[in-house]
Amino acid sequence: MSVRESEFIAEVTAGMAGRLPVGPGDDAALLADGTLVAVDAVVEGVHFAPRTPPERIARKALGRPLSDLCAMGAVGEAVFIAALLPPGGPSLELARALNAWARRFGVTIAGGDTKRTSPGALALAVTAVGRAAGAPWLRSGGRPGDRLYVSGPLGGAGGGRHLDVTPRTDVVAALRGSGLEVHAAIDVSDGLGRNLALLCEASRVGAVVDAAAVPVHADVPAGPDRLLAALGDGEDYELLLALPAAARPPALLTPIGELTEGRELRLRRDGRPEPWPEVGYEHAV
Amino acid sequence: MSVRESEFIAEVTAGMAGRLPVGPGDDAALLADGTLVAVDAVVEGVHFAPRTPPERIARKALGRPLSDLCAMGAVGEAVFIAALLPPGGPSLELARALNAWARRFGVTIAGGDTKRTSPGALALAVTAVGRAAGAPWLRSGGRPGDRLYVSGPLGGAGGGRHLDVTPRTDVVAALRGSGLEVHAAIDVSDGLGRNLALLCEASRVGAVVDAAAVPVHADVPAGPDRLLAALGDGEDYELLLALPAAARPPALLTPIGELTEGRELRLRRDGRPEPWPEVGYEHAV
Repeated sequence: MSVRESEFIAEVTAGMAGRLPVGPGDDAALLADGTLVAVDAVVEGVHFAPRTPPERIARKALGRPLSDLCAMGAVGEAVFIAALLPPGGPSLELARALNAWARRFGVTIAGGDTKRTSPGALALAVTAVGRAAGAPWLRSGGRPGDRLYVSGPLGGAGGGRHLDVTPRTDVVAALRGSGLEVHAAIDVSDGLGRNLALLCEASRVGAVVDAAAVPVHADVPAGPDRLLAALGDGEDYELLLALPAAARPPALLTPIGELTEGRELRLRRDGRPEPWPEVGYEHAV
Repeated sequence: MSVRESEFIAEVTAGMAGRLPVGPGDDAALLADGTLVAVDAVVEGVHFAPRTPPERIARKALGRPLSDLCAMGAVGEAVFIAALLPPGGPSLELARALNAWARRFGVTIAGGDTKRTSPGALALAVTAVGRAAGAPWLRSGGRPGDRLYVSGPLGGAGGGRHLDVTPRTDVVAALRGSGLEVHAAIDVSDGLGRNLALLCEASRVGAVVDAAAVPVHADVPAGPDRLLAALGDGEDYELLLALPAAARPPALLTPIGELTEGRELRLRRDGRPEPWPEVGYEHAV
């Protein structure tokens, strides 16, 4: 029986949410002792093509859960790697690449597990553990009137940039250092449209985004659909943040709109709100 | 290039050990804040046969890393599940079974990730997080003269019992409750022979085991090789512990020998030491 990812997760986590300060449903879980944990898996043929260089596989595998910690306002400290390795895979090169990227990202590889899988695709499930210097940023803290910001240009990552993940620890550090209050945050790895919808749902608010303000990545081809690419392509690993209207955030952030009363997402073009375009996706598992 | 699991792990974790109180190489990692983390993956066709009931897959997947925490003298609090699901797999049944076994084992499912894998085998990588009520039990604390104990009968698990993992939280609770000092511990999921060798290597000691004292599981067929099955079969998920000679441990534990000076492992039959038989294995990855 093939089911949607959301149904699978709902069954796995049924009744579990109330047992933790922040349980399943945000970018990372917050345990009772303040530890933040995020888990992400990448699979050959789904998240990277066969014959992708080990350096890029390792970067994406480590970068994704570390980006999830950034979305909680935390910086990763340790990672644990479960590696499923088909026979004849690039094992030692991959091992060295994981070590090298962990160092680049400033995290310790604290453990893990390696298993052969035959037949099977190369897969890496990475658990990232960190702590936040202050209250973690949740998806649910957004309020009507908050300004929305993104940390970088969006769209077109599928051409290859999706492998070159850089967790935005610089944004976390700048915001934590500034003392600015962050009401809500999420990473936009699923696309701005879907991740904004998740933030709004968790915060029980709506949003309006200025079409002209959304930074579109140079990787998006010229043409009339550039905005849709920025809203829907995903795999950008940038942060989407909701800050109080009075905040003067660091230049790393681009303002794109605001949270509103009601529960609708809208685009604003030439000052006029219009319905949100159909973008965003969910994998069936 | 196909390499041994130990080579892969050595490259992944090169230079990482000194950064943590207990890093890669024990049953679980100890982070600076006292959190213990263990990761384990099970793969269809390797750790369970195709068409294994979801209830048994879920039990083994959750039980293995929780058993690793027990080997550190800790009890699991939360688990994170990365599920790689081939199309048409028993998704919802597996999701419900994971939820049910997490409840049975007293842990919260705090997050995870689900991914499709096609082609690919069903795989579950589980990260277990816990804390120890006291100093964690390491592999490296054994001393010559310590008595060795196992928590249950060994061997023959490959017939099916290997799926029915029960983390020995009862042993952890009994020993923590007794106030007894535990010098070293490891789980015997790789077989008593291999896991005793790892404990001795980490503790820089040798060991002698009384052949007649090793509890052999009723699942081991009658015949002359019953002791070898108990020493080498593995997948028992019992604990092997080294306690001071004067300790009077709870009845849950069976004494099987002692740690010695030197670095040799020996069996003692009718009072005479003899060389350790060739048992134990290591997967190439």
